[in-house]
Amino acid sequence: MDTASQIALAADLLGVLFFAVSGSLLAARKSFDLVGSLLLAALASLGGGVLRDVILDVPPAAFNNPAYLVPPLLATGLVYFVFSGVERVRQVLVLFDAAGLALFCITGTVKALELGQNPVSAVLLGVATAVGGGLLRDVVANEIPQLFDPRDIYALPAMLGASMVTVLYLTGTFTIITGIIAASLAFSLRILAWRYSWHAPLAAKLRDARS
Amino acid sequence: MDTASQIALAADLLGVLFFAVSGSLLAARKSFDLVGSLLLAALASLGGGVLRDVILDVPPAAFNNPAYLVPPLLATGLVYFVFSGVERVRQVLVLFDAAGLALFCITGTVKALELGQNPVSAVLLGVATAVGGGLLRDVVANEIPQLFDPRDIYALPAMLGASMVTVLYLTGTFTIITGIIAASLAFSLRILAWRYSWHAPLAAKLRDARS
Amino acid sequence: MDTASQIALAADLLGVLFFAVSGSLLAARKSFDLVGSLLLAALASLGGGVLRDVILDVPPAAFNNPAYLVPPLLATGLVYFVFSGVERVRQVLVLFDAAGLALFCITGTVKALELGQNPVSAVLLGVATAVGGGLLRDVVANEIPQLFDPRDIYALPAMLGASMVTVLYLTGTFTIITGIIAASLAFSLRILAWRYSWHAPLAAKLRDARS
Repeated sequence: MDTASQIALAADLLGVLFFAVSGSLLAARKSFDLVGSLLLAALASLGGGVLRDVILDVPPAAFNNPAYLVPPLLATGLVYFVFSGVERVRQVLVLFDAAGLALFCITGTVKALELGQNPVSAVLLGVATAVGGGLLRDVVANEIPQLFDPRDIYALPAMLGASMVTVLYLTGTFTIITGIIAASLAFSLRILAWRYSWHAPLAAKLRDARS
Repeated sequence: MDTASQIALAADLLGVLFFAVSGSLLAARKSFDLVGSLLLAALASLGGGVLRDVILDVPPAAFNNPAYLVPPLLATGLVYFVFSGVERVRQVLVLFDAAGLALFCITGTVKALELGQNPVSAVLLGVATAVGGGLLRDVVANEIPQLFDPRDIYALPAMLGASMVTVLYLTGTFTIITGIIAASLAFSLRILAWRYSWHAPLAAKLRDARS
Repeated sequence: MDTASQIALAADLLGVLFFAVSGSLLAARKSFDLVGSLLLAALASLGGGVLRDVILDVPPAAFNNPAYLVPPLLATGLVYFVFSGVERVRQVLVLFDAAGLALFCITGTVKALELGQNPVSAVLLGVATAVGGGLLRDVVANEIPQLFDPRDIYALPAMLGASMVTVLYLTGTFTIITGIIAASLAFSLRILAWRYSWHAPLAAKLRDARS
């Protein structure tokens, strides 16, 4: 395994850890048990990548490299022992979710580009990797997905990150440094938007739509 | 690309547009923002086809042909500017959903047959294409899926359309004309059933089942 | 088809029947109609296996062998005519769900091992097969999945069964008899835990976590 692959794996595993913590935190908030915490951590952290790999028709990394099981186990233990006293579960959850999102929109896009996808498809797959796990996490926990929360800017940072990386990759300027910058910008956009309540316009211009 | 393929693509894209509008309408009804509207439109309109293609083990069309991204963008804009004042969102949603369903049960079945699936499998994949996107749309929006609404006849028209097309295809009588007739019948059954409140019997004969 | 394959198919179809009944029972409890009952039965019983086969990149059995359609049809009829008077729907549902879980964690793991997956991956795929269908069933019916119900020990028996079968298979001691024993142990653990209210610890040590 060359250095580039090792760095890509490390970044991916770090993203997995962030999303795994977000899964275990949601499990704690919903009063699930430890096994449910482990499963929600695994779904949140591995779901997006498995989705991407199934669409790309390559063997899902999570099922071929046992290293991918460590972050969900770690997250389950961490939330059990450390985060229990945390009062503001939602805030911490958003923080970890944002960090995972920023990393996954980079790693997902790069994997798609390396496998020869066209730029548009690579951006789509990067976004799908980034938002897929969190979407599955919220759906199976029977929550309205954070992805659709109008108080939160969720998919835009992932689209930004995936687009930036695609441009960097195609112009031959994608390096560890520029990758970290792209991830940081995606992360910052999400957190700033959340902190300062930046909103996207609602889906319908007039609000008097009745069901 | 020959004429038959072009017509198939056009029919598929029209179905994508109908389902995309249903997604954006639901997003408006749930007070999601514009990005959520785009994502729900994309999931509703492309989800069924991606599901079918993953099961058929062919590259999902939505990820290989950027033309598939136009309908969700169009639907998001349409709902934002035009449909906002519509009072009866649910009725319009059912109309677009029914049109998409009618087209997708045709195009999905034909694609499966062309890829050599047996007739039973082709009908199943046609139905999965037709109901899959709407199911994903409702599930991620945390709604009871329209598919299971006992006031609505949803899957039967798709089964009818997929079965008719399979018979037409295997007897060599599938043409643009007979395809349009099959889609029209599926659409009419759904809309008539909805208009005149035709119901299927409930899942349990006696209603005193207690949980 | 040799005897071993026939037995594997029979065990798989029996598991499909059990999960199909659980799907139709839930449909009855949610007042879905007969078509919804058939679809929920199909999703609950075939969803886990399709998920496994898509990850393994082999054609999903449910789409290639029409025999897999018989159990959902059977279950829909059974629930319609027989189970309607049953008062304790939830108890019967748990029983059928547990039987399906016990069979699927065996058949899913064996299929993964036969296709050359490593032991860890085989256990994961066995568990995914066993819990996947029930998870999809509950999610599309807009219920908190049984998988996450802290009053129920759900995934642990599947993990136990999948692990036992992997050890048996790798040590060359997997036979019909030892397979039945493993399935029985998984089933018994689930039912005993349910009957005597054994719980796993909650995801967070302290319960004062606030959202």
